[in-house]
Amino acid sequence: MTDLGSVDPAKMSGLEFLRYATSLPDRTGIGSLLGIAADVLEEGHVIMSLEPRPEFANPLGTVHGGIFSTLLDSAMGCAVHTTLPAGAGYTTLGLTVNLVRAVPVDAERLIAEGTTVHVGGRTATAEGQVKDADGRLVAHATTNCMIFR
Amino acid sequence: MTDLGSVDPAKMSGLEFLRYATSLPDRTGIGSLLGIAADVLEEGHVIMSLEPRPEFANPLGTVHGGIFSTLLDSAMGCAVHTTLPAGAGYTTLGLTVNLVRAVPVDAERLIAEGTTVHVGGRTATAEGQVKDADGRLVAHATTNCMIFR
Amino acid sequence: MTDLGSVDPAKMSGLEFLRYATSLPDRTGIGSLLGIAADVLEEGHVIMSLEPRPEFANPLGTVHGGIFSTLLDSAMGCAVHTTLPAGAGYTTLGLTVNLVRAVPVDAERLIAEGTTVHVGGRTATAEGQVKDADGRLVAHATTNCMIFR
Amino acid sequence: MTDLGSVDPAKMSGLEFLRYATSLPDRTGIGSLLGIAADVLEEGHVIMSLEPRPEFANPLGTVHGGIFSTLLDSAMGCAVHTTLPAGAGYTTLGLTVNLVRAVPVDAERLIAEGTTVHVGGRTATAEGQVKDADGRLVAHATTNCMIFR
Repeated sequence: MTDLGSVDPAKMSGLEFLRYATSLPDRTGIGSLLGIAADVLEEGHVIMSLEPRPEFANPLGTVHGGIFSTLLDSAMGCAVHTTLPAGAGYTTLGLTVNLVRAVPVDAERLIAEGTTVHVGGRTATAEGQVKDADGRLVAHATTNCMIFR
Repeated sequence: MTDLGSVDPAKMSGLEFLRYATSLPDRTGIGSLLGIAADVLEEGHVIMSLEPRPEFANPLGTVHGGIFSTLLDSAMGCAVHTTLPAGAGYTTLGLTVNLVRAVPVDAERLIAEGTTVHVGGRTATAEGQVKDADGRLVAHATTNCMIFR
Repeated sequence: MTDLGSVDPAKMSGLEFLRYATSLPDRTGIGSLLGIAADVLEEGHVIMSLEPRPEFANPLGTVHGGIFSTLLDSAMGCAVHTTLPAGAGYTTLGLTVNLVRAVPVDAERLIAEGTTVHVGGRTATAEGQVKDADGRLVAHATTNCMIFR
Repeated sequence: MTDLGSVDPAKMSGLEFLRYATSLPDRTGIGSLLGIAADVLEEGHVIMSLEPRPEFANPLGTVHGGIFSTLLDSAMGCAVHTTLPAGAGYTTLGLTVNLVRAVPVDAERLIAEGTTVHVGGRTATAEGQVKDADGRLVAHATTNCMIFR
């Protein structure tokens, strides 16, 4: 595995960059902090997962809504990113999350799926959902992004 | 400081519970994981803050949108919680976050404010905003919650 | 066709009520004002449509975002309503609409689809999208509702 | 009052354009259809109002959520528009509306206020709220927009 110095992200497509970045043995950042795995990275479609932990608890003792928001923001933002050619970038402008089921902090692995809905010249939208290990819907979301080409 | 076993949360108002829970020396959960401080807890109004860290980075190297979402969800949800009498509870149904400014992971402390907008018999809404150390708006949000009385 | 006086909405399921209400020859209300047709009413799935008119214009001369919001709110709210048994009701708490393509006011008929995502005991969520006559996505949305049983 | 042909909107600031357009005696479009009045147009701040009518009813007999969405979308979008110099334009990308109180269709005039929250080089956000004639909050919202300079 080469280190980051030997590649030029500006020459990679979004999909190439994400596959490269998630393959690094020494990942840092939010993915590492929360234990988020990027299980599938395809053009316009991303699957990520994480395992709940006691430190994800809200004051009520279940998984904090921010954890679902983070997972969904990641999966949806990356789904948009996978559609971008080299030299293009994006930024997330808005994120709406609907929480439909409380999850105990000792639950099994949560699976998030992000899919692009619209990819235009200057904007993109995506949708996402999180399911628990039994396939029950836990949260769903949409996002809108601005694209820089 | 007494430990959790000596108090009965069911007999505390939301404000009493949150003041108690945030005063505990051995906090666990998301607040502890991200270093969120509850600076102000008043009825219908909450101020929380955190200091950005390198492990809050998104793949683009700035603070991940999920961090703002988590901070805002906490501040807004707690603002709703502070209005509830003993015996009542709430759950967050929806959360919308607008991200208006990228924040570097070595930025100074971020300040989040959550304020109730509507508190009714069965539902409540709140709004929130995050500012950086220079007072510039970074993100803002609204939430809607269901209340159990 | 019997008039409204001869039936008891409280004894109808949501689906029965909506099929009945949309079959009335003298519809009033927002559907009549905007010319919204209920093309499909099934459990958890609704298709509605309307034809753009010059009076739907925003100051920029294209179809106002409020028209898409109204159409999507109707389609998604009715999708939730179709799942309710007799005696149950609902109210919409939140609505998020993403607008992805401007539509001229002389465009052909717009088709909206609303589908439930989660229907629980006390809450429900739905998603919706609007397409133009060429099948291009124009807007999409999610909603969350509270259910009274 | 001159007709539209004698002025060049491209040479007007957003505020000038909106003041001009809302002063025309023969307004068309959604404002005319719903009877929306632009009561205050200032930089970053707009007040609009409308009077409920029986044809604004949803199937449950109260004012349809789409009416609030339209009023809020107008007030917030115009608040953003008032901040733009001549030659700049904007488009609404996302809209989130929280509905907190049902309104009968024979209620008195509803007042909507839209205020910009963030106006940057390429994006802007705004918030809005609708109150009834007794000053009670009925709905509130946020929006995000893209700006073309």
